[in-house]
Amino acid sequence: MKNLRLAAGSDVRLACRTGEFMGPTPGLAPGFVHANLVILPKDWAFEFLLFCQRNPKPCPILDVTEPGDPEPRGVAPGSDLRTDLPSYRIWREGELVEEPTEITKYWQDDLVSFVIGCSFTFEAALQTAGVPVRHIDEGVNVPMYCTKIPCRPAGRFHGPLVVSMRPLTSEQTIRATRICGRYPLAHGAPIHFGDPAAIGIHDISKPDYGDAVSVHPGEQPVFWACGVTPQAALAQAKPPFAITHKPGYMFLTDMTDGDLDVV
Amino acid sequence: MKNLRLAAGSDVRLACRTGEFMGPTPGLAPGFVHANLVILPKDWAFEFLLFCQRNPKPCPILDVTEPGDPEPRGVAPGSDLRTDLPSYRIWREGELVEEPTEITKYWQDDLVSFVIGCSFTFEAALQTAGVPVRHIDEGVNVPMYCTKIPCRPAGRFHGPLVVSMRPLTSEQTIRATRICGRYPLAHGAPIHFGDPAAIGIHDISKPDYGDAVSVHPGEQPVFWACGVTPQAALAQAKPPFAITHKPGYMFLTDMTDGDLDVV
Repeated sequence: MKNLRLAAGSDVRLACRTGEFMGPTPGLAPGFVHANLVILPKDWAFEFLLFCQRNPKPCPILDVTEPGDPEPRGVAPGSDLRTDLPSYRIWREGELVEEPTEITKYWQDDLVSFVIGCSFTFEAALQTAGVPVRHIDEGVNVPMYCTKIPCRPAGRFHGPLVVSMRPLTSEQTIRATRICGRYPLAHGAPIHFGDPAAIGIHDISKPDYGDAVSVHPGEQPVFWACGVTPQAALAQAKPPFAITHKPGYMFLTDMTDGDLDVV
Repeated sequence: MKNLRLAAGSDVRLACRTGEFMGPTPGLAPGFVHANLVILPKDWAFEFLLFCQRNPKPCPILDVTEPGDPEPRGVAPGSDLRTDLPSYRIWREGELVEEPTEITKYWQDDLVSFVIGCSFTFEAALQTAGVPVRHIDEGVNVPMYCTKIPCRPAGRFHGPLVVSMRPLTSEQTIRATRICGRYPLAHGAPIHFGDPAAIGIHDISKPDYGDAVSVHPGEQPVFWACGVTPQAALAQAKPPFAITHKPGYMFLTDMTDGDLDVV
């Protein structure tokens, strides 16, 4: 297997497809766009697309497939969403029931796949600018938290904003805000920094998803809208069937950071 | 009636509702976000939302209503899309059949309304920066053209990109590119400048929608993606029934330019 820290997006997909790689993706394929995945039956697709439209910070849409088509042609031609992620989650009636490493046997002709931007995309740009990315430095998954900030509902979908967190100094926070603001399709600028309780997070050492990371003296937690937000909304909306990625175990596209840098 | 060149978005809506104003909206309510309108039956809504998602330059979504609800609560609480635009277009099977000034009698419980960004939004910012907006200076509607650039299809929706045009010098083009790039939800930076034939426009003096404007010596035509693009797609997709605004006769929201300035 190639060194996935120096690989292209397609290399990571291939390693997932062959079963060689099943881990979280922070730090892999630097410069390639990582993505969240939500798969729903067609009769839930309009409401979910509207939920994304109404909540563009956590749910920036990169691609939507035709019903039954597992290939997101806009962002990764030739890929297969059923095999090319390291790990998935199967949901029934809003309950997480399984975490398989491929989903071929679950596929249905009416499934629509939503490929949603991910903050891992701008992490290479942060590191290049000297802004540390703690979970990469510590070799773990990014910490993610449910907040008390409500999303704007759409039909049956509603729920809290989920955020990712990176600890930074004040100067690094300013620099990260400017850099990430160039990537609205990867969640863009942070939504909060400083007091976690102000957005409903009561213990920064216990993330709801992913792994805890160290916060050094002089640093504060900085929070970005996160593409796991739809998973919290799925748990509320309880569609009969849904598939997502496992938080932090992302789909690697062929898009590069430059494709998302709008400024 | 108030002087609508010094009014708020809500003043323009009221003047439309009372029948006092029925004209094109360039230059009105400076600083308030102008919007395109597309209204479709619910069973066409997913494909159209997907068409917008796949063509974000011409179709940046600002708001989508619940079926049957004529109030776009996200961008103009208290407004009524049936009466608050200066002029509308009624479409049957892809044919333009009427241009009424209100649509109350056409309303149905299954209609979903899409409020889409408009380039008139950044014109105040251009003028403030010394970049001329010729159609405002000449007191006419903006010129708009069908191009040979195809949109990315979604279901039954496909068709050419429609563009608006403003003549500028090279220096003004650079300045306008930087300014408009801050407003991706109002079509953002231009998509082309210079030779109109390169994008399939053969006579700049004969726009497909709106009015022709003068191009002065030293100026070139500069083209922006335009929210009339969905009307060209409606003509191809031929839904049984649809309502849009009349090109250039926009819906004024309560959003301000600052709400759309992402940088």
